[in-house]
Amino acid sequence: MRHTLVVLVEDKPGVLNRVASLFRRRAFNIESLTVGHTETAGISRMTIVVDGDQISVERLTSYLYKLVNVIQVDDISAKPMVSRDLAMIKVSTNAKSRSEIIQMVDLFRARVVDVTAGSLIIEVTGDERKVDSLMEVLKPLGIIEMVRTGAVAMARGSEALMGASGKLYGSESAA
Amino acid sequence: MRHTLVVLVEDKPGVLNRVASLFRRRAFNIESLTVGHTETAGISRMTIVVDGDQISVERLTSYLYKLVNVIQVDDISAKPMVSRDLAMIKVSTNAKSRSEIIQMVDLFRARVVDVTAGSLIIEVTGDERKVDSLMEVLKPLGIIEMVRTGAVAMARGSEALMGASGKLYGSESAA
Repeated sequence: MRHTLVVLVEDKPGVLNRVASLFRRRAFNIESLTVGHTETAGISRMTIVVDGDQISVERLTSYLYKLVNVIQVDDISAKPMVSRDLAMIKVSTNAKSRSEIIQMVDLFRARVVDVTAGSLIIEVTGDERKVDSLMEVLKPLGIIEMVRTGAVAMARGSEALMGASGKLYGSESAA
Repeated sequence: MRHTLVVLVEDKPGVLNRVASLFRRRAFNIESLTVGHTETAGISRMTIVVDGDQISVERLTSYLYKLVNVIQVDDISAKPMVSRDLAMIKVSTNAKSRSEIIQMVDLFRARVVDVTAGSLIIEVTGDERKVDSLMEVLKPLGIIEMVRTGAVAMARGSEALMGASGKLYGSESAA
């Protein structure tokens, strides 16, 4: 089963390395990983999608907590959540195919972010399946290159992450 | 100076670990890193933003090429490019603030992806500065939590990555 882990970490050198090493050592296959800044300076947030059963993901969570600079780990898979992926897709166009592509862009509520005589760059956000569907539709028209971020996820509703993210920062050593 | 590296890698276990270790060992500070699937099965694409001078980034590029499963490295900083970041921001709302927030969402061409009586989740894409600006505007209204992907980037125009991405896959050993 797919699990989506939200991991808050201190923004220190080596923390990504430690997390990636852990997944490697424990032979977990990372489906996707993103890391970016949060609303709090010095704190980064990772969204990690892994494949595994409930017990091994719980074990993984406890290993993550043992790593230096890891503040908080939350498996939000069981909660109602919003998961989003951003992709940019460069497609080759000609006078004939352009209008067909733009129609697809509208249907998928995507956006054109660059235009040349022979190509378009399309930006699309959505859950993984939506991005995959747009890819499928554009493939026969000629995809030149494509980049996607991997998923970021957040539990629905007005609660913050585990409802206590602000309190835990001070409890970590920076050893 | 900021450099944006596009790195194509084989989708094998340990490749993220090797890349993260390299940055750690060489004491490069990663501003952001994303990794996701591409249009080609078995190939992932990383976008890595680092801070460093031209010479050290060129050296870094040569180190990256030496890693197992790294196929191609391109510093696209000097080219015209599109760089995009996706953020989800959960803000607390009340009857009074909601319309103000929705106005901001419209101005930034962001989208509301979840609504409760006391909160909204907003999705926004754009370059880093645009996402930062929206954050600034929403901060006084009460940000509950926030996640962002880090940048993905692509050179403008109809060329593929270095114009030869398809030819290089076979040249790597999987040792």
